[in-house]
Amino acid sequence: MTAALPSATRRLDQSRIRGIVNTLWLVNGQPTGIDPADRGLAYGDGLFETMAASDGRIRWLDLHLDRLEEGCRRLEIPAPSRSLLTKEIEAHCPRKGRVVVKLIVTRGPGVRGYPPPESPTPTRVLAISQWPDYPDSYYRHGISVRTCGLRLGENPALAGIKHLCRLEQVLAQLELRGQPVQQGLMLDASGAVAQGTSSNVFIVAGGELATPSLARCGIKGVMRRVVLEACRALDIRAEERDVAPAELLGADEVFMTNALFGIWPVTELDGRRFGVGATTERLMTHLGYGHA
Amino acid sequence: MTAALPSATRRLDQSRIRGIVNTLWLVNGQPTGIDPADRGLAYGDGLFETMAASDGRIRWLDLHLDRLEEGCRRLEIPAPSRSLLTKEIEAHCPRKGRVVVKLIVTRGPGVRGYPPPESPTPTRVLAISQWPDYPDSYYRHGISVRTCGLRLGENPALAGIKHLCRLEQVLAQLELRGQPVQQGLMLDASGAVAQGTSSNVFIVAGGELATPSLARCGIKGVMRRVVLEACRALDIRAEERDVAPAELLGADEVFMTNALFGIWPVTELDGRRFGVGATTERLMTHLGYGHA
Repeated sequence: MTAALPSATRRLDQSRIRGIVNTLWLVNGQPTGIDPADRGLAYGDGLFETMAASDGRIRWLDLHLDRLEEGCRRLEIPAPSRSLLTKEIEAHCPRKGRVVVKLIVTRGPGVRGYPPPESPTPTRVLAISQWPDYPDSYYRHGISVRTCGLRLGENPALAGIKHLCRLEQVLAQLELRGQPVQQGLMLDASGAVAQGTSSNVFIVAGGELATPSLARCGIKGVMRRVVLEACRALDIRAEERDVAPAELLGADEVFMTNALFGIWPVTELDGRRFGVGATTERLMTHLGYGHA
Repeated sequence: MTAALPSATRRLDQSRIRGIVNTLWLVNGQPTGIDPADRGLAYGDGLFETMAASDGRIRWLDLHLDRLEEGCRRLEIPAPSRSLLTKEIEAHCPRKGRVVVKLIVTRGPGVRGYPPPESPTPTRVLAISQWPDYPDSYYRHGISVRTCGLRLGENPALAGIKHLCRLEQVLAQLELRGQPVQQGLMLDASGAVAQGTSSNVFIVAGGELATPSLARCGIKGVMRRVVLEACRALDIRAEERDVAPAELLGADEVFMTNALFGIWPVTELDGRRFGVGATTERLMTHLGYGHA
């Protein structure tokens, strides 16, 4: 079956975007809707990045684009050029203040059915939203975390990349609804620690760091990479390996990371209390978090 | 963070839809684009059904709507009413000829982040496309199948329902590119048989049917249910259970099913040849396939 597909691109009222609403949406550089034939919608056939921007500059932009390119390579989606993406982000990111910049890249429109088009035309979706303003206490006094019942399915072919198939995280969030916690802890199908609902997790035990290797599932966060590189710079031993839930409960320090909030100490996990540890504080200071 | 979201709904040129292109797209009953904030795009947070229509009637419509409702229940998406969906399909399905009707139901638009909105407004996407016109030989002489290297991740919370997170099937199709096969066979992470790339799989051995139970992964197809019910009517013993790859190679008959093509005998699997078996033919005759 072949089909010429309708382009669903129509201009939205730009004033509506810049005015009432607090998210600016651009699809392939234009303020329009998504083609209903887009494979990002049909099959989760795409990737995304969520980035912190300050005064028009994206923090860790190169690392975000590295991960996006790695995801495109693994899914065989032609990666949009870094210069195009950078130019598009810079053109729309406010010069002053902090915002969240989310970029979705899909395989683009296709005819019905799983087989991807021979020559895909990827879709870029850029969303610029207001900064969440995380409470200062999360940095100073830490966050509360519950272990979710739902476990992450394991598929090495999809592990590590930030693809669009995220129903597991959505169901985990449904579990946490109404609970006074800032992250859920997700285990993998084998029962090992995988990640936070929207973060990566680190433990400190005997002065050494460990974080799940994420070879079977989970997302290798940009902040996770930044922390691992900081450990090398600070001469802190850090390992990517399997981490058992009991190791978390027995750790000296636990912290979670993502590219928006940076580093949050975990001071309560399923009722077990932790202090804000010296190694966690050292990394936070080194990377400029928690002193806002 | 709260955000009033831009509505991405703009009318497409209706003549373009009905004229040049061969897929009619409707979003919430209107010929428009998808809101870029839709969680179906952001997270694969939704479900779909692909249905066969003849002369304005959907075959197995009740079973498709049953599965959609079960999926909505499990994902906690408010299910659109059956009468609304039926009315919408009937209003747009051509009165004459065969078409494919695809329905996507997502949790609708949301603000950035995995936590679903408290009161979601689901999005309905209806796509009416031309019928694939499967070769008659697939029914008479069977199809060729290769086992894919990629295995399905296992998650009982998502098993059985037809959700939008389908990158595994997309990657499996990438593996099969250029190969002269009509379906790929997908195993689960445990190494058991799960499904075809876009079908369910049955074996016949000693006059008895077996099909994977799909408790850990895979989609419980409407045609799979129809075949299991036909077995009861025809007094053929059929079991839903774990099926090992070796059982397929050792089976008397193998066939695959989906709601569009119905039943296809498998006459070659990874080089092993099968005949078109008597039980497969009996089911095809009973259900009206292969005599077009």
